[in-house]
Amino acid sequence: MPVNLQAPDPSALHPVPGVRLGIAMAGMRKANRRDLTVIALDEGSAVAGVFTQNRFCAAPVQVAREHLALGAGTRALVVNTGNANAGTGEDGLARARATCAALAQLMQLRPEQVLPFSTGVIMEPLPVERIEAGLPAALADLKADNWAVAAEAIMTTDTVPKAASRQMQVDGHTVTVTGISKGAGMIRPNMATMLSFVATDANIEPAALQALVREAADLSFNRITVDGDTSTNDSFVLIASRRAGHAPITALDTPAGRALRDAVVAVAEQLAQAIVRDGEGATKFITVQVEGGRSVQECQQVAYAIAHSPLVKTAFYASDPNLGRILAAVGYAGIADLDQGRIELYLDDVHVATRGGRHPDYRDEDGQRVMKQSEITVRVGLGRGEAQAVVWTCDLSHDYVSINADYRS
Amino acid sequence: MPVNLQAPDPSALHPVPGVRLGIAMAGMRKANRRDLTVIALDEGSAVAGVFTQNRFCAAPVQVAREHLALGAGTRALVVNTGNANAGTGEDGLARARATCAALAQLMQLRPEQVLPFSTGVIMEPLPVERIEAGLPAALADLKADNWAVAAEAIMTTDTVPKAASRQMQVDGHTVTVTGISKGAGMIRPNMATMLSFVATDANIEPAALQALVREAADLSFNRITVDGDTSTNDSFVLIASRRAGHAPITALDTPAGRALRDAVVAVAEQLAQAIVRDGEGATKFITVQVEGGRSVQECQQVAYAIAHSPLVKTAFYASDPNLGRILAAVGYAGIADLDQGRIELYLDDVHVATRGGRHPDYRDEDGQRVMKQSEITVRVGLGRGEAQAVVWTCDLSHDYVSINADYRS
Repeated sequence: MPVNLQAPDPSALHPVPGVRLGIAMAGMRKANRRDLTVIALDEGSAVAGVFTQNRFCAAPVQVAREHLALGAGTRALVVNTGNANAGTGEDGLARARATCAALAQLMQLRPEQVLPFSTGVIMEPLPVERIEAGLPAALADLKADNWAVAAEAIMTTDTVPKAASRQMQVDGHTVTVTGISKGAGMIRPNMATMLSFVATDANIEPAALQALVREAADLSFNRITVDGDTSTNDSFVLIASRRAGHAPITALDTPAGRALRDAVVAVAEQLAQAIVRDGEGATKFITVQVEGGRSVQECQQVAYAIAHSPLVKTAFYASDPNLGRILAAVGYAGIADLDQGRIELYLDDVHVATRGGRHPDYRDEDGQRVMKQSEITVRVGLGRGEAQAVVWTCDLSHDYVSINADYRS
Repeated sequence: MPVNLQAPDPSALHPVPGVRLGIAMAGMRKANRRDLTVIALDEGSAVAGVFTQNRFCAAPVQVAREHLALGAGTRALVVNTGNANAGTGEDGLARARATCAALAQLMQLRPEQVLPFSTGVIMEPLPVERIEAGLPAALADLKADNWAVAAEAIMTTDTVPKAASRQMQVDGHTVTVTGISKGAGMIRPNMATMLSFVATDANIEPAALQALVREAADLSFNRITVDGDTSTNDSFVLIASRRAGHAPITALDTPAGRALRDAVVAVAEQLAQAIVRDGEGATKFITVQVEGGRSVQECQQVAYAIAHSPLVKTAFYASDPNLGRILAAVGYAGIADLDQGRIELYLDDVHVATRGGRHPDYRDEDGQRVMKQSEITVRVGLGRGEAQAVVWTCDLSHDYVSINADYRS
């Protein structure tokens, strides 16, 4: 059961001028399942992406990076579920390239103008012939208001489709930001991958778009963790069709740049949080906020130590306000000169620990009350600086073990 | 159910001349439970220790470190279960010191000749008065052949007492190494702590003993992981009563030094592995061996990435030879220039992956056969150097979640 997450209302997902989506059933792994999505971009669009840091990155990730680097002007993305084309070596690269070539031919593009994305089982050969057979139907389906269908088509073991949309004004022009994501663990059983595609019609220069995709990733997808495992296929792509009528955005530190940045970050944040809310076996959505660090990096380090600790995560599952586990995670996060006597800990509004020890006014029932909620904020003060960082995670339940232990059986 | 681990046969635990152990029931947390242990050392003994790196280290750890640093000549260790005296601030330090003072008075020692150790619930005040009341009975019980009783008395939620013993010859003199350990997760629910005490009568100089305790810890307790959480109280203490008749060992790279080193490492390794075998919810004992790295450090990094991955651990629980999860963990272990095309993977004798992809001769049923065993070796070749490292861990089962989620209820 996802935590406070519903399927998106299709009418709330604003189409993005210049971006059309087409979906088909290609029988990648199961029959009668939408599993192939094409995102077609008008000429003049700009595209930027951030990809998994996993050294075992999948073939489509390698090809997408390569094609983006060529700067040929991306005109289409092709996304399949059912097979991740990961751990497949040279043959996998050839199949990812064949996918791009097939779509390029149908759309009269060059192969390097197509970016491939795959998600699903790993270490199995990608059935390119099924993709080729499915592409005409996907192209025939291309339309601007297909975001909700695409959100469903890119799912693997997600239980709820994930989408978000915003509009704002830039110089009196309405600008849209709409996106979809999938992924229910950083790497689901052997279904790999977090994928997210966000599009805007904002008129933004490619260099600024590249800066924006990194910043948005850092503030959203790079802040979530379900189980600490990093997938081989993780990709976040930001598309700008540049069709909005406002003057070009050349930098993010302008009024228009900030407005777009805020909208993209808000959409990315909502999509990232949706992944955690639909995390494997999740029963609670946890915000871990670390303040008072000397650097953002050390705050993140502490936040991740808390968010990754199986003991902390099982305590959330049990609604057990187990102070010790959180403080212990702070202690082993790797800040060599951390002074435990300056650590403050809050569960929502409840001041649990002060100066590294139990707060004198703290009562177990207050902690219990917060821990029973489906949404909880853990706030840690390090008392050594001004930096802060936030990470979102979920609890660790019996269902997590069941889902991951029973998947292939 | 611990994995291939039985309670030690008391008669197989050789007494160590110069070392006596006394156990009492102090009612620390439960009545009629042996929970207080004194280890008394003859004059002239040398003691060295390694302690938790957690910045939230417990009061007894701080005091033990302090007393060792004073070099006053340790003559007694006092160990209580039921309360870890962790997360207790200044008051906790005062109580740890009071414990040492009480035992010192009874034994006519100085307080700094006593080292305190505590394990049990955290963030609760240590009941020093119960320790004081129990000490006379513990002292009355002091004897050399009490190792098996002490192994049981230091347990918290361990299901089996843990002890190991060896003898060897140095210059025609019999030298004994005997030790005990406890801990069933790196940090059990809110019962903190891994503790281990190993004693030898070898005549070894303090500087060499200090080198030996570090080396032995690196090859044993620093190679195990149950859940990646590091306790606030972890301590490994090596005692040398120096009563054996051989010439003093001044360095480890001598024939006598090597013989002692091998015996201490073997005992420490057995005690460390016993902790994993008795890991929370463990059903399998996993050896992760990483070879072909450029440094031991990078091999350890990869081994820990595999051993900490919840996805890998649930796959072991499910007896699922899920290659992808192990390769993905290798990929995100943090070696920036790792070439996935050189990775080899074996499950015991089965060659699962070669050059980063599935081995052509690999059959799922061969992997399955190995994964069903209660002891499994995962061997990863990085193909970039000569270094290697080993880490021992267990699987992640439904019982792990149950034990940790239900502990306080």
